[in-house]
Amino acid sequence: MNHQKMSRSELAQMAMMLEVCAYPKPGNVDRCHDYPDTRLEHFLASAILVRPVFERAERRDGKVGELIREAVEHTTRHSGGNTHFGAYILLIPLIMGGDIRGAMEVVSQTDTSDAVEFYHAFSLTSVRMLRSDELDVNDPMTIGRLKERGMTLLDVMRHSAPNDLVAREWTSGFALTRRAADLLHSSGTGRDAIVRMFMTLLATETDTFIVKKHGSAVAEEVRRRAEEVLERNLDAGDLDEWCIEREINPGSIADIAIAAIYVAQGEGWVWDS
Amino acid sequence: MNHQKMSRSELAQMAMMLEVCAYPKPGNVDRCHDYPDTRLEHFLASAILVRPVFERAERRDGKVGELIREAVEHTTRHSGGNTHFGAYILLIPLIMGGDIRGAMEVVSQTDTSDAVEFYHAFSLTSVRMLRSDELDVNDPMTIGRLKERGMTLLDVMRHSAPNDLVAREWTSGFALTRRAADLLHSSGTGRDAIVRMFMTLLATETDTFIVKKHGSAVAEEVRRRAEEVLERNLDAGDLDEWCIEREINPGSIADIAIAAIYVAQGEGWVWDS
Repeated sequence: MNHQKMSRSELAQMAMMLEVCAYPKPGNVDRCHDYPDTRLEHFLASAILVRPVFERAERRDGKVGELIREAVEHTTRHSGGNTHFGAYILLIPLIMGGDIRGAMEVVSQTDTSDAVEFYHAFSLTSVRMLRSDELDVNDPMTIGRLKERGMTLLDVMRHSAPNDLVAREWTSGFALTRRAADLLHSSGTGRDAIVRMFMTLLATETDTFIVKKHGSAVAEEVRRRAEEVLERNLDAGDLDEWCIEREINPGSIADIAIAAIYVAQGEGWVWDS
Repeated sequence: MNHQKMSRSELAQMAMMLEVCAYPKPGNVDRCHDYPDTRLEHFLASAILVRPVFERAERRDGKVGELIREAVEHTTRHSGGNTHFGAYILLIPLIMGGDIRGAMEVVSQTDTSDAVEFYHAFSLTSVRMLRSDELDVNDPMTIGRLKERGMTLLDVMRHSAPNDLVAREWTSGFALTRRAADLLHSSGTGRDAIVRMFMTLLATETDTFIVKKHGSAVAEEVRRRAEEVLERNLDAGDLDEWCIEREINPGSIADIAIAAIYVAQGEGWVWDS
């Protein structure tokens, strides 16, 4: 495996591919199961078709908000719906900046036009947001409010951070991505390392995507059960089934996992030894 | 699904991704099983990493032999060994020419330098060839013989056609690819159509990759058993297991299947309805 020969765009595409193939990942699309309308092939199609946007990010040809919106637009080239919105929020600055340090510089330079583009991206998806939110994406007044207050995309992420694991990365120096990448480094190589990292995140973090869809009690229940899996008191396959029956999918942790695979690869972690 | 928005390169990458994900495909890597050294992820990594070569093919920036060699070289960017050599022999002229008609024009224009590049590509892989062959890739004299006789890459394919399903496509107007694409059109959309097409090819054609590795008796036995699957006298999963136990993988039919998915998509066949 010659990582030096891979561009940032390719490392990001590989991260998307490796994450969705790893199994078992309780509740999420993986090699062993699909959702009814979004299948493994849709996730992989996104990983293939997003490339031109990643290449623009790598060349710094475009702004963060615009590139996130364009990446999401590529989702509309297949009928599987949103597959990677959260992942793009992390990958676009990481590709632009190269690594976490560079990504932090990128996010610090966002402006209101990035925030507006981001809200346009949202309108292309059916990604769940808290209804009560003052910056509700379904509210046509929101973009006006953003402009009025001169909010940057980083401000929007600050606003969302308390309730959103992915937004929090922008405000925390990609702290969870960093921890997840370190988990990969310490878990050896290959598919099993990805699953171990995913299970550890699931056991230690409350997935905010689950909170928004099912409430915090259910999210905490998933975390507790993942802890049991780590302690070998519960089979990962059983937790997978339990999640699927309830349509519980830890989507935010999957987004973090993708960002972590990208970061770890850039630091020399190898997936296929 | 908006196929018009996909480039030829993207359609070819999608074909590679869709083929390897379809299951069950007796004996081959699919969503349900890996080979020990070559896993689903390696096939998908090839589909992602080959893109720059496909884009050159689409721009007609390079010659057939050179582009096949470069596509194979991208295989060395992961440690899974050869995944798509036969597929590239079909996809590169198809991408350059756009469709079968265009591909036939492309292959008719090959020259000796294409043949030489092709032999260099072979030396990058451990792809099986008949030992007794006068144009043996393991024989350092072969390239000298090619030049001496002024053989084009099409001549090489003519030479290999009797014993190689993929080479035969170059000399037959991509006849089997055409038939397989028609099978897709008549099998509806999606993953099941790919599996049906694959099983029909397996039941009607002798896979020359199996012949080279296991002899023609075994290849005929696989064909007969595939026929039984089509007649519903044998379960596809059982044939899959039977093949895996014997390390029998119908690699040439997989190559044809990829070319067929590319062609069918170009004609409006949709994978994800």
